[in-house]
Amino acid sequence: MTITTRTRNPWCLARRAERLEPSVIREILKVSERPGIVSLAGGLPAPESFPVAAMREAAARVLVDTPREALQYAASEGYAPLREWVAQHVRGQGLAVKPEQVLITTGSQQGLDLVGKVLIDAAAPVAVETPTYLGALQAFTPYEPEFVSLDGDDDGPLPQAFDALARAGRPRFAYLLPNFQNPTGRVIPRERRLPLVNAAREAGVPLLEDNPYGDLWFDEAPPPALASWWPEGCVYLGSFSKVLTPGFRLGYVVAPPALVPKLLQAKQASDLHTPGFNQRVVHEVVCNGFLDQHVPTIRARYRAQRDAMDAALRRHMPQGTTWHAPHGGMFFWLRLPAGLDAMRLLDRAVAAGVAYVPGAPFYARASDPRAMRLSFVTLSAADIERGIRVLGAVLHEALNDVAVAAP
Amino acid sequence: MTITTRTRNPWCLARRAERLEPSVIREILKVSERPGIVSLAGGLPAPESFPVAAMREAAARVLVDTPREALQYAASEGYAPLREWVAQHVRGQGLAVKPEQVLITTGSQQGLDLVGKVLIDAAAPVAVETPTYLGALQAFTPYEPEFVSLDGDDDGPLPQAFDALARAGRPRFAYLLPNFQNPTGRVIPRERRLPLVNAAREAGVPLLEDNPYGDLWFDEAPPPALASWWPEGCVYLGSFSKVLTPGFRLGYVVAPPALVPKLLQAKQASDLHTPGFNQRVVHEVVCNGFLDQHVPTIRARYRAQRDAMDAALRRHMPQGTTWHAPHGGMFFWLRLPAGLDAMRLLDRAVAAGVAYVPGAPFYARASDPRAMRLSFVTLSAADIERGIRVLGAVLHEALNDVAVAAP
Repeated sequence: MTITTRTRNPWCLARRAERLEPSVIREILKVSERPGIVSLAGGLPAPESFPVAAMREAAARVLVDTPREALQYAASEGYAPLREWVAQHVRGQGLAVKPEQVLITTGSQQGLDLVGKVLIDAAAPVAVETPTYLGALQAFTPYEPEFVSLDGDDDGPLPQAFDALARAGRPRFAYLLPNFQNPTGRVIPRERRLPLVNAAREAGVPLLEDNPYGDLWFDEAPPPALASWWPEGCVYLGSFSKVLTPGFRLGYVVAPPALVPKLLQAKQASDLHTPGFNQRVVHEVVCNGFLDQHVPTIRARYRAQRDAMDAALRRHMPQGTTWHAPHGGMFFWLRLPAGLDAMRLLDRAVAAGVAYVPGAPFYARASDPRAMRLSFVTLSAADIERGIRVLGAVLHEALNDVAVAAP
Repeated sequence: MTITTRTRNPWCLARRAERLEPSVIREILKVSERPGIVSLAGGLPAPESFPVAAMREAAARVLVDTPREALQYAASEGYAPLREWVAQHVRGQGLAVKPEQVLITTGSQQGLDLVGKVLIDAAAPVAVETPTYLGALQAFTPYEPEFVSLDGDDDGPLPQAFDALARAGRPRFAYLLPNFQNPTGRVIPRERRLPLVNAAREAGVPLLEDNPYGDLWFDEAPPPALASWWPEGCVYLGSFSKVLTPGFRLGYVVAPPALVPKLLQAKQASDLHTPGFNQRVVHEVVCNGFLDQHVPTIRARYRAQRDAMDAALRRHMPQGTTWHAPHGGMFFWLRLPAGLDAMRLLDRAVAAGVAYVPGAPFYARASDPRAMRLSFVTLSAADIERGIRVLGAVLHEALNDVAVAAP
């Protein structure tokens, strides 16, 4: 018996795999980890905000009280007491749901994937905001949708954008991130919410409402969830990543009863279930109201950092740069003066010692080259000042180049 | 502003979602949890085998030594020291790979999903064994393949089955579980492996090799991995579920360098990364050779249970029932005497106090109604004896009915 030595490549990629691309942000984050770089690029929560002591105690307790249950295979739906806690918790967003409507997911990224798996056919339209969360585009892309960009303004998508959709072919759903959106930081205000939901309902377009940042408000709590006005037409996604820890990968999907069985089967096919140990530990931590004490400390921290960044931007940005200081979440969204291109300036900025994320990857279709996302939650006020000062200098210099090059 | 009250269902499922079905096994497992039922149906490792003390110590250490790293977002590829450990570990199966070829997955079920995501187009052929692991069929089904059943015998798929494949349209890959297969328990013997790999290579059909049970051998270690003879044509899947704990959901994919970037992008789209805390804890547990002491204790436990079930089957099965006592893994695969149908007998067996899994769900195409899977790893020898005795009585009675009904 001889080993055949034919070397033909036997692999044939699925069509969808051709669409998968290396994440631009991953590449930027790699660059921004170089020593000496002030990174305004990351989307990571402040590690100082992780409740290490509470997690340590809960982990120990779970492995003393119910080790075999925590280490065994578990239900695909999730740990029942945690599903009950979530059903109770989302009442705060105006959602009246049963625990059976809650599925625990491996991070809320998996919620995006499961919804894509169950609802998107190749070439089917899917509507997204302009700009939208990059990770959602990445989750949906393997299912080969045709992305449609919803027109919007500083307050989020416009209700009339849904009328246009209905004419172009009804999307499988519209993906919206109403609270402190990644990347723009904006909240859809109360007075826009009901008209938006009614327009979606009128157009027959269900909503996928993503709410990872809702609890991170600095000034006032955001309005009720869109899903509260149209429960049977909305899937709602939540996460423990921003209020507790992202490293445990715990998120949840709240879905209308009719969709739950298919989402559950997709979940089972994807990873059987989310780690039972992690679910039990997080339930131990949150079940007695821990978040009521803990989240305000994160808010206070991020609020101070938001203020530091806003002040630094006022000091150092060249005229013509625009932004709104966000009322929550983790990001500033800047628009640079005319003539500047955030993607092209990145190398120069990194060489000067500061990194950011250009806006382009957040657009499903035509992008705004002048947009830029800045994170303020993992840096000290001093580092924020230093980073924004360097960025300001880079922009001033680039503007001079533009002026010189102009005819 | 009034709330629109139109109640039209806005949801349109993807075509693939129509193919998702409730798991037959899930339904059986629910039934088998009723009090008083001896369940031979489960596929769960024995919880007595979980190294609770080691896990407890490691969890505590990780949360003392590196809490912020363990609780933060982490790399999609996995925790670097764990990838290195895996690259070293699979040398035992004859694989010489670099850590960069290893991706940590959320259980090896996610490995199946990612391979499906990257390689399966709708209507593309995918070859599977006859019978095959049900969870793999569930993972691939959402990508809408055309399943092709490989002809085989008691030693696994026949090399000539690959020639037939090439004629029918080259499959994207063939999914094989060479060691102590779920459900049949058989090992592909050493002398079949190289001819099988050569036939696959000759036919241009890459292999997806799944090896969750390879370490659970009772008599002798299984032969080298198929991938050891054709590294560039094989993706290899491994898991910590059967040798440590399934509740942490940790598996891994070892892939040829050309496939790694696409699998990584699919991983990122699916859940960003596998929980970093879990990866660090498991690395703490395994990094100093813990499995060398621990896995032999699982082998000894399961070997004794295998012997108990084999003896009980000899005592209680009606003539005409056939099986091979497995040399590892977790399952017996029985063929009932002519005239019996395992699916139809299930209700009667449950009423008598014993549950099992009928063979039908493990077949991609035409199934053998006389096949049945029995798990022996979660029951005491006494419960095994009791369950098999009851099952034997049910089969004897059913055979009498067949004899009476015969003309």
